[in-house]
Amino acid sequence: MIVEIAIIRAKPGQADAMRQGFQAARAVIAQAKGYRGSVFHQGIEDPQRFLLRIEWDSVEDHMQGFREGPLFAQWRGHFGQYIDGAPDVSHFEVIAGP
Amino acid sequence: MIVEIAIIRAKPGQADAMRQGFQAARAVIAQAKGYRGSVFHQGIEDPQRFLLRIEWDSVEDHMQGFREGPLFAQWRGHFGQYIDGAPDVSHFEVIAGP
Repeated sequence: MIVEIAIIRAKPGQADAMRQGFQAARAVIAQAKGYRGSVFHQGIEDPQRFLLRIEWDSVEDHMQGFREGPLFAQWRGHFGQYIDGAPDVSHFEVIAGP
Repeated sequence: MIVEIAIIRAKPGQADAMRQGFQAARAVIAQAKGYRGSVFHQGIEDPQRFLLRIEWDSVEDHMQGFREGPLFAQWRGHFGQYIDGAPDVSHFEVIAGP
């Protein structure tokens, strides 16, 4: 199991729309092969900042299977128009917890 | 419940020491009032990058109770010497999941 962390900013005035978009998009990514679970977060000090934590069986399930597969456009369609700047997307291994 | 996210970089050559430091430090923070649980991560593409996800009852339990309390020096002593640059520490609410 590996963890995708995506840090994504909303355009000014679009934080509420982005939150609703992520909430709707979660049902799309949950259908992907290798998806294990997710928690989506919105910043308290900075409500324009969102952080998605998504568990996958492997980096390949995320980067090839999902991002190059048929679900990606549907997923991104729920929030892509609200993104400000380039998302910061990378992968992590769990070293302690839960 | 709120979520602290801390993104912390290790100095060059210190990633292994920092990983071990975080693993040891987790037993310290687990004693804090308002602590609910945590998962610690290390970057796959960038092993110098660590991300701590820590659940607290409230922002105040983290910022006042823990950071200004007696456990903080012991916690930080396990990894503070390996930190490169300024950690990025902020708080989030969960908007979807788990």
